[in-house]
Amino acid sequence: MKITVLTLFPEMFTALNHSIVARAQAEKQIELETINFRDFSANRHGRVDDAPYGGGAGMLLTPQPIFDAVASLPEAKRRIIALTPTGRRFDQRLAEEWSEETELVFLCGHYEGFDQRIHDELVTDEVSLGDFVLTGGELAAMTMIDATVRLLPDVLGKSASHEEDSFSTGLLEYPHYTRPANFRGLMVPDVLLSGNHARIETWRRQQSLKRTFERRPDLLEHVVLSASDRQYLQSISGLSND
Amino acid sequence: MKITVLTLFPEMFTALNHSIVARAQAEKQIELETINFRDFSANRHGRVDDAPYGGGAGMLLTPQPIFDAVASLPEAKRRIIALTPTGRRFDQRLAEEWSEETELVFLCGHYEGFDQRIHDELVTDEVSLGDFVLTGGELAAMTMIDATVRLLPDVLGKSASHEEDSFSTGLLEYPHYTRPANFRGLMVPDVLLSGNHARIETWRRQQSLKRTFERRPDLLEHVVLSASDRQYLQSISGLSND
Repeated sequence: MKITVLTLFPEMFTALNHSIVARAQAEKQIELETINFRDFSANRHGRVDDAPYGGGAGMLLTPQPIFDAVASLPEAKRRIIALTPTGRRFDQRLAEEWSEETELVFLCGHYEGFDQRIHDELVTDEVSLGDFVLTGGELAAMTMIDATVRLLPDVLGKSASHEEDSFSTGLLEYPHYTRPANFRGLMVPDVLLSGNHARIETWRRQQSLKRTFERRPDLLEHVVLSASDRQYLQSISGLSND
Repeated sequence: MKITVLTLFPEMFTALNHSIVARAQAEKQIELETINFRDFSANRHGRVDDAPYGGGAGMLLTPQPIFDAVASLPEAKRRIIALTPTGRRFDQRLAEEWSEETELVFLCGHYEGFDQRIHDELVTDEVSLGDFVLTGGELAAMTMIDATVRLLPDVLGKSASHEEDSFSTGLLEYPHYTRPANFRGLMVPDVLLSGNHARIETWRRQQSLKRTFERRPDLLEHVVLSASDRQYLQSISGLSND
């Protein structure tokens, strides 16, 4: 997979040198390139922003540098993703979809955002990291790159598995415990020390159901529940079992 | 505001040197400290992870290094925030709430996450950046720090305003345009060149309403709508006006 990032702050992406993204690069599973679109500005001072038409606070990114930076990329089947709070919310499903692509291009905005013609003419995906406002798209792009790259075949390796991640089952993960069994008087639940795998599986499933019910009941609507799942949810919620 | 980050990858946080967070530090509006909790490991090899009780893939962060790293911090009124996909979703409201605090401590997980006793005993806020899985909490922490710090008084300065941001009005932002009015045949909407401020305001409000209706109708439930807002929404949606 080729990942290209158009940004005014390519130095920020060195943060990824300490992550799974660096490993995926070293193993040639991805190629990551950052391009400073200021280098494409036709303005002799390298300006890339200007005031909004119609008034208002803040500056906007002008079309010319970004149009020309995109035109400089080799022609390819690719998705051009603009990071913007007005876009579709990024989620695990979108990360899975992107992990099947051969090329992703991220446009990182700054100031008050992009001139709308950039969205209209160049962008295939307008995506938001969530319902909050950032000073730029760089942290959002890095986050989405991390979430996507770890899904590529062989990237995570044997040390971890994304099959049991939150969101891949549709439920929140159950609580995890490791050694020591008694940490300064705080004990690991007995069931996890029992060696009884069937009991452990039941406890974990019920903990996942309980957490999801308490914290994110919206997720339960999309989960396939067994008869015993429903019975358990009924026992903790008093919901009718239909 | 004091911000402390407990992480195995403090180098990643140099990404913030190119952001508004660096400016806020230079102007003494925040103090940002990263602590590698591996330095607190009582294990002579500096180990911080171990296998899960009850079986399963992946490694967990053990309690001892994180308990001792937190104990080393000066006593203060503070929030201790664990980044985890099972937490409450981060949003603009939470950024606003945090921007009123005097001290925030972020715990960045890795591998399959934290031993549950860390959550139970130390953590005041379990927060998720969204419904996706990352290899570590660092990018999530940096994102939340950026969103929070830009809300501190005087951080954004005169060059920008967060009063008109997406989510502060409850609606998605309207489209923005800057010069040139004609970019390679792509025109700015006439209304924005009209100089008629009342017409511009109406156009912008309607564009915000339209976008929110089309992309994020869930947001409309929490917005105070005027009679003309409702009339406009009715005209584009065919919804009944009640």
